[in-house]
Amino acid sequence: MERRIYLRMESPEKAREIFLSRFDLQGLLPPEEIFTVGARGRVTAAPAIARWSSPGVHQAAMDGFAVAAAATFGATPESPRHLPLGKEAFAVNTGHALPPGTDAVIMVEQVPDPEADPITVEAPIFPWQNVRRVGEDLVAGEMVLPEGALITPWAQGALLAAGVSLVTVRRRPRVIIIPTGSELTPVEDLTDAPPPGRLPEFNSIILAGLVTEAGGIPEFRPIVPDDPAALTRALEEAVAAGDVVLINAGSSAGTEDYTYQAIAALGEVLVHGVAMMPGKPTLLGVVAGKPVIGNPGYPVSAVLSFEQFTAPLMAALAGLRPAPRPTLTVHPAQNLPSKPGLTEFIRVTLGRVGEKVMATPLPRGAGTITSLVRADGLLVVPALSEGLEEDLPVVAELLAPPEDIDGTLVVLGSHDNTLDLLATLLRRQDPQLRLSSGHVGSLGGLMALRQGRAHLGGSHLFDPETKTYNVPYIQRYLPDLPLKLINLAWRQQGLMVLPGNPKNIRTIADLTRPGVRFINRQRGAGTRVLLDYLLQEQGLKAQTIQGYEREEYTHMAVAVNVHSGTADAGLGILAAARALGLDFIPLLPERYDLVVPESTYQDLRFQTLLTVIRSPAFQEGALAMGGYDLHDCGRILWKQ
Amino acid sequence: MERRIYLRMESPEKAREIFLSRFDLQGLLPPEEIFTVGARGRVTAAPAIARWSSPGVHQAAMDGFAVAAAATFGATPESPRHLPLGKEAFAVNTGHALPPGTDAVIMVEQVPDPEADPITVEAPIFPWQNVRRVGEDLVAGEMVLPEGALITPWAQGALLAAGVSLVTVRRRPRVIIIPTGSELTPVEDLTDAPPPGRLPEFNSIILAGLVTEAGGIPEFRPIVPDDPAALTRALEEAVAAGDVVLINAGSSAGTEDYTYQAIAALGEVLVHGVAMMPGKPTLLGVVAGKPVIGNPGYPVSAVLSFEQFTAPLMAALAGLRPAPRPTLTVHPAQNLPSKPGLTEFIRVTLGRVGEKVMATPLPRGAGTITSLVRADGLLVVPALSEGLEEDLPVVAELLAPPEDIDGTLVVLGSHDNTLDLLATLLRRQDPQLRLSSGHVGSLGGLMALRQGRAHLGGSHLFDPETKTYNVPYIQRYLPDLPLKLINLAWRQQGLMVLPGNPKNIRTIADLTRPGVRFINRQRGAGTRVLLDYLLQEQGLKAQTIQGYEREEYTHMAVAVNVHSGTADAGLGILAAARALGLDFIPLLPERYDLVVPESTYQDLRFQTLLTVIRSPAFQEGALAMGGYDLHDCGRILWKQ
Repeated sequence: MERRIYLRMESPEKAREIFLSRFDLQGLLPPEEIFTVGARGRVTAAPAIARWSSPGVHQAAMDGFAVAAAATFGATPESPRHLPLGKEAFAVNTGHALPPGTDAVIMVEQVPDPEADPITVEAPIFPWQNVRRVGEDLVAGEMVLPEGALITPWAQGALLAAGVSLVTVRRRPRVIIIPTGSELTPVEDLTDAPPPGRLPEFNSIILAGLVTEAGGIPEFRPIVPDDPAALTRALEEAVAAGDVVLINAGSSAGTEDYTYQAIAALGEVLVHGVAMMPGKPTLLGVVAGKPVIGNPGYPVSAVLSFEQFTAPLMAALAGLRPAPRPTLTVHPAQNLPSKPGLTEFIRVTLGRVGEKVMATPLPRGAGTITSLVRADGLLVVPALSEGLEEDLPVVAELLAPPEDIDGTLVVLGSHDNTLDLLATLLRRQDPQLRLSSGHVGSLGGLMALRQGRAHLGGSHLFDPETKTYNVPYIQRYLPDLPLKLINLAWRQQGLMVLPGNPKNIRTIADLTRPGVRFINRQRGAGTRVLLDYLLQEQGLKAQTIQGYEREEYTHMAVAVNVHSGTADAGLGILAAARALGLDFIPLLPERYDLVVPESTYQDLRFQTLLTVIRSPAFQEGALAMGGYDLHDCGRILWKQ
Repeated sequence: MERRIYLRMESPEKAREIFLSRFDLQGLLPPEEIFTVGARGRVTAAPAIARWSSPGVHQAAMDGFAVAAAATFGATPESPRHLPLGKEAFAVNTGHALPPGTDAVIMVEQVPDPEADPITVEAPIFPWQNVRRVGEDLVAGEMVLPEGALITPWAQGALLAAGVSLVTVRRRPRVIIIPTGSELTPVEDLTDAPPPGRLPEFNSIILAGLVTEAGGIPEFRPIVPDDPAALTRALEEAVAAGDVVLINAGSSAGTEDYTYQAIAALGEVLVHGVAMMPGKPTLLGVVAGKPVIGNPGYPVSAVLSFEQFTAPLMAALAGLRPAPRPTLTVHPAQNLPSKPGLTEFIRVTLGRVGEKVMATPLPRGAGTITSLVRADGLLVVPALSEGLEEDLPVVAELLAPPEDIDGTLVVLGSHDNTLDLLATLLRRQDPQLRLSSGHVGSLGGLMALRQGRAHLGGSHLFDPETKTYNVPYIQRYLPDLPLKLINLAWRQQGLMVLPGNPKNIRTIADLTRPGVRFINRQRGAGTRVLLDYLLQEQGLKAQTIQGYEREEYTHMAVAVNVHSGTADAGLGILAAARALGLDFIPLLPERYDLVVPESTYQDLRFQTLLTVIRSPAFQEGALAMGGYDLHDCGRILWKQ
């Protein structure tokens, strides 16, 4: 069992430079001559020179009558000239060659009776008026396109107009894609879910699409098992057959990652490991003078690594300039901490709230391909940064058309699992609409509404004095904002403990027992407010609880701590406990409301959301999750 | 001989609305089911639902050892746990299914000696840590893509991950392209320039490329001659075979324009004539419920009409959102008058001068396809406007990548024909560089330099007092700008008269004779300054010259006036007289200099231009044009 460690990890920029500078990017592919009619999207490898002039003869530029201009000199309405057809005037349409002896065209609109013979001319016309002269567009010998020009449809037209029926272009790189991994099954062989231990191989389809979009020709190879000799043989064949080789994956440092070995055996590894996330296990090498890329196996890593290294390589080979993605200034809906030393790419959904575009993160795991599918944009956290701060402007690369942003409702506040269900059902109801939820705690949601950073809030703030939910907080923090409070659900808050409740925890007071380790929620979270209320009500002191100062940001994170044994109890909702198979001691039902400013309420997009909230599909789905009471669901409970 | 007049001309917006609202754009094409592996770039016609979950089993998310988390609880460096391989710990690589009984993965980096058996565990691990759980990415029954989604490479991956091997998409529209015109010859039949009276047919290639880029499938038909019955038959066949029909051209109002007749005979003409330029002769109709477009014949008109009507139609049919072109705020380098009542599209080259991007117009004729090929951008002059004003900011649609703008040198000032030669030779020398020249007169060029709107000026301003060129004007208007004056050429200024000189004009004094009609240049033009100097020197009064107040902006426009007989004489350069076959009475040689600010002079792009100016290719080409004396060409004559 052999494991390898990464060579020194390079930054993406440095890795790209090491890789690209190794090749003669303009000379790697010989030019080829192809028919101009099939050359759209290609790039010229030599100047294209006009073989003949365009127009080739003097042409009528208007519909009308070709005449010798001199015959019209001095014509006025009072003393018009009369020109007989077929002798001194000739009916011509746009594009017709001028008859011999004529040098101008009178527009048909300027002839009093175009049906008459002779025609009457009431004004003089200049020589060459309404005429396209020989070579006006292109002169024989003139350069139609310089070297390195992208051939657009109209460039094809210009080339053909000038007799350039063959054009010298850069050859498109042939990119050989080798999937590798003994656990992989080709997707086309699957008629049912892959059996345990087998994984569907679809990365080669993703990569082939990216290769095509980058101007290359993808070629597939069969899956190579985890066998260093087999991989080396496959690489040898690929390097002989293609211009670029993409091996996916085996580029990591696992026991069965043989891509390093194969490249090193036949050529040279230039980079192993890039300080980016996703995309770290990227291998860049050279075999027989040709670029070889070991692409990471997680689909999101595969895409991001391709974009950083293979796409710029291919653009340079094809003579194309990679078109940068459009960008937009956005505001993170929540803090996005990131590991310093790594460039991180965070997929986000975007939603316009007033003047600002809010960016809400999607799952950050590299295996979560839906995070790319659902993303509107990509945030880049530089290696030197510890993350992005809530609401501080940052530039996002756009993955979706900007119009999509206008279909997004942004909800910020406390998280509840039914929000995910709601998002799915909303998209089903109207594909143009999305619900994007950021988790900033109940109070954070109210602050976001005050600052106009969200369309709606999600809140379950208990007020100990009035023993009511949300209203006192709204009156304190949002006194001037006309809004409605709409209930989403009542849910059970309680203590999550290990199955069988080994520490026999039954009440809040049990948390103060020696040997009971607690895990808390962050300040501002409704659950934290509730805990503090219960402690005060029962005359218990926070500092007597071991772990009171340890904070997590979601119900699920609390549940994971309990489940993993790093804490004995945490306060949270039944759905989270159930998701991890924990025991649950109910303490009290709690109201979870949507805080809906009047401007949002009047918005058609919100009205669609409200329809979904009130639908049987949502209510049945929420009940199935457990711990929810929906008797108030969708009701307006209060307004100001 | 029958001519037709346009139906009421519609604005482009109104025409588009009339056209698009006539069709059920979502229902015109039935959906089709295709293999997901071939679905890149298509648009879903129904939601795509996951057939199975992804991952299908719990998977290792890291390389390392799969264990039961409970077996690690309490582990510390002081009291580690020892887990035997194959029993309590299992070596796994990323993506491997978890062995039964395990629920977490210890990263290989955290095991002191990964080669040992048993392995040593020095810290506890949570259940599910470093594990991708079943359905983490996609759960069976969940929607992978909504209806109307563009299928990206990663969306293909998500679909395949979830077992969606067939996907329901919008059918791509089949667009039948019918070229028509008796004078047309297929480009593929041409081995030499087309004989007089024949025109090469290449618009169908341009249109096919545009159709493909808009998501459709183009199909070619043979050229149909100017025969109404033949065109009607071709249209009937096309409507039966395709989804959209493009007839090019015959959409104008000429005697042989039968497109209107054919559409009217089989269906209905919705719009004939659009108030846009180029693109006016556009026909929009419907036959058997299918859209039929009569596309104008000039290539630039064909492209712009396609973009206004056919492209949005096809995008709607394909379910794609047409991606708007990137835009940029630019400043016209000169006044661009435009006919009110028509929306005009002006092709421009763009060049960055300091903070501003200057837009210089290309030839405005619709037959000049090179104006599209060379354009960096498109300016739109709204119908209500009389044109765009010099230097007032306006938004341009970009046709070229923004980087191209940085390769452009902007010269503003007096026009000289050698500037065109220079532009051609510069592009040949370095395809990344372009010379973009705007014609604002010599003084206009100095003003532009003062305001930082040009890289260099072109000037031939004669100073009567000192009898020198340019320097006194520079000292007056640009006293503080370090610059060099570099000669381009000495050229002959003189009087242009009709061949044979019928009015016997020999001197400036002859211009004051009764019956001699003059055509003047605009104020600020070097030629105008010269005329005024000669008049003053000879004691002649401007008002005694008939036509002194009639102004033209270029040498060629003056020559055309003389040539057409609307004037008997004009002052200008030999090259212009020669171009129109006029007689020329030399009056005096005149110096034409480039005014080069030091910042431009230091610029590598200008140094390349200077190399071209000093090259034999330029000097020989200029001499061949006639009237030029190049003894000072490329010399620095003065600096400040």
